[in-house]
Amino acid sequence: MEQQGKAAVGWAARDDSGVLSPYNFSRRAQKDDDVTIKVLYCGICHTDLHIAKNDWRNAKYPVVPGHEIIGVVTDVGSSVTKLKAGDTVGVGYFVASCRSCETCGKGYENYCSKIVSTCNGVDHDHGGAVTQGGFSDVLVVNEHYVLRVPPGMPLDKAAPLLCAGVTVYSPMVLHGLNAPGKHLGVVGLGGLGHLAVKFGKAFGMRVTVISTSPGKRQKALEHLGADEFLVSRDPGQMAAAAGTMDGILDTASAWHPITPLFSLMKPMGQIIFLGVPTRLLELPACAIVPGGKGITGHGVGSIRECQTMLDMAGEHGINADVEVIKMDYVNTAFERLEKNDVRYRFVIDVAGSLASGAGDAKI
Amino acid sequence: MEQQGKAAVGWAARDDSGVLSPYNFSRRAQKDDDVTIKVLYCGICHTDLHIAKNDWRNAKYPVVPGHEIIGVVTDVGSSVTKLKAGDTVGVGYFVASCRSCETCGKGYENYCSKIVSTCNGVDHDHGGAVTQGGFSDVLVVNEHYVLRVPPGMPLDKAAPLLCAGVTVYSPMVLHGLNAPGKHLGVVGLGGLGHLAVKFGKAFGMRVTVISTSPGKRQKALEHLGADEFLVSRDPGQMAAAAGTMDGILDTASAWHPITPLFSLMKPMGQIIFLGVPTRLLELPACAIVPGGKGITGHGVGSIRECQTMLDMAGEHGINADVEVIKMDYVNTAFERLEKNDVRYRFVIDVAGSLASGAGDAKI
Repeated sequence: MEQQGKAAVGWAARDDSGVLSPYNFSRRAQKDDDVTIKVLYCGICHTDLHIAKNDWRNAKYPVVPGHEIIGVVTDVGSSVTKLKAGDTVGVGYFVASCRSCETCGKGYENYCSKIVSTCNGVDHDHGGAVTQGGFSDVLVVNEHYVLRVPPGMPLDKAAPLLCAGVTVYSPMVLHGLNAPGKHLGVVGLGGLGHLAVKFGKAFGMRVTVISTSPGKRQKALEHLGADEFLVSRDPGQMAAAAGTMDGILDTASAWHPITPLFSLMKPMGQIIFLGVPTRLLELPACAIVPGGKGITGHGVGSIRECQTMLDMAGEHGINADVEVIKMDYVNTAFERLEKNDVRYRFVIDVAGSLASGAGDAKI
Repeated sequence: MEQQGKAAVGWAARDDSGVLSPYNFSRRAQKDDDVTIKVLYCGICHTDLHIAKNDWRNAKYPVVPGHEIIGVVTDVGSSVTKLKAGDTVGVGYFVASCRSCETCGKGYENYCSKIVSTCNGVDHDHGGAVTQGGFSDVLVVNEHYVLRVPPGMPLDKAAPLLCAGVTVYSPMVLHGLNAPGKHLGVVGLGGLGHLAVKFGKAFGMRVTVISTSPGKRQKALEHLGADEFLVSRDPGQMAAAAGTMDGILDTASAWHPITPLFSLMKPMGQIIFLGVPTRLLELPACAIVPGGKGITGHGVGSIRECQTMLDMAGEHGINADVEVIKMDYVNTAFERLEKNDVRYRFVIDVAGSLASGAGDAKI
């Protein structure tokens, strides 16, 4: 018989209006290899908005969003070895994978077909319960999927690293775009793009931001430290940069033409594509065959990569530019996020908004 | 003053009818690092047809096609070290590159921006002369771009390895699709595809041919030794094979939908795209992002890869299935090639068609 779980409170969407409101529910009972986490901060990712509004037709209402979670361990199961009460930790996009398939065996559990996402996922190991995310006071997670947060990080600014951070870091490492002197292009300057610039510079690379908005030049160069800024609608600027980039991280979520990006790259360069617009991308074979170029999708990153990313972020002082909000501002934040009106990530001060721990929530 | 070159005879196209006819011209004088080659056999690649008919609007008439060349060395320059008269050799798609750029430095001179193709190229090092290909009795080539043909190979069947062979071999090695036990998909069963199956089996892989034509099943399985045959228009067969392939070599030159191919691959699988249809490929972001999949173009291969490929072909008895013709059949062969009426490559018996060596050609 499964032990009674811990009472939790969060904010959940109830229907495809996507409007969040307070929600009382239970976390599963802590198992031997689980840790219990008091949530401190949780970032707001575009995915949360998609889930809340049922954009992908798979919302399991009521659903508590949130997968960029920073918290503190309050309890650990008897077999937990890597963590103890009091540790500052993070939880990212997923909380389970099969750990036995070929993909998990290679260390890329982010591509496991049985991955369980942190919110709106179906937790096969726990009776098929729907997972509820980090817009809540408490979490219970298998220790394998919990990351150690290096000491000294500002915890609000660290939260977005758990999804946005690893989503740009992982493909940079995977595709060799992490070597000093290489030239990285970054398309889009939102939650993902601004972190791509920071990691690119920390890797010692030359970083060029590619944007449709000339107005972002100053932010890119002066604030984020990019080396160059390229207006993608300016044929002269694009021609001058032709054949100079080792690879491009394309973080723009809206549809856009990718053909001009190929000419920016050296032979054998790859566009790493992170957004998921619904309209088909247009790909001319003549843009990829003669130079051996390509376009590869990428989603999040592995647990190992996420830990390495956090360690590097701690060492180099990398964190997200955030706007910290209270939980009762979340619906307004969703509206603003939809209009890209945030520089660059909203982070909810969860512990400062909800009474924590005992489940006797005060909102 | 440049020494007078050797008289040569070949068959050239004179205009965009693409019709070839006898053509007397001069090869450049042999330099210290050049070798002179008596041509024995030359394969006919689709590219030859495109050049002859000016499909790419860059034909430099009169143009002698041919870049799948097997011959014998008749003379070498004073500084040539790796070859001597009497050696059996091959020449492929290109005869020069800058050898000083970053791409050449990495050993991928096939992607050098200053590459000089074997026919219809502009030879910057030799006064901007237009290069003339292997549908001719004699060649003069820098030794760096001349390949050693392993002993014992049937020379007519070896010719197509110089372009078709390396074009499938190179990306297999580059993308790790050369490991025993891996599962390779091959789209299209023409000059490139049939060699991809042979190399795939020689690497110890499981090879599945993916085709729109159920009629090719027997050839694929019984004759070429593929393990499986998949009709791409059969949703049941495609669903049964979902998620099983490590990568796909797409050799089909005509436009076709690529979306269904992504679902055949395991996470992080790559489609290697070798054809250049003019119509835009349709690429759904949702087919590549969640599984970290991609599509990468590829053209020919490096000199180093070409030599390794020939050595492997010699060791494993890999060669092309060819239909050997005389030079005066070449216009008919072009017509049949245009209708894909060849299994799998035409090869011209050049030495058996043209009087060779002295340039006093008898046709």
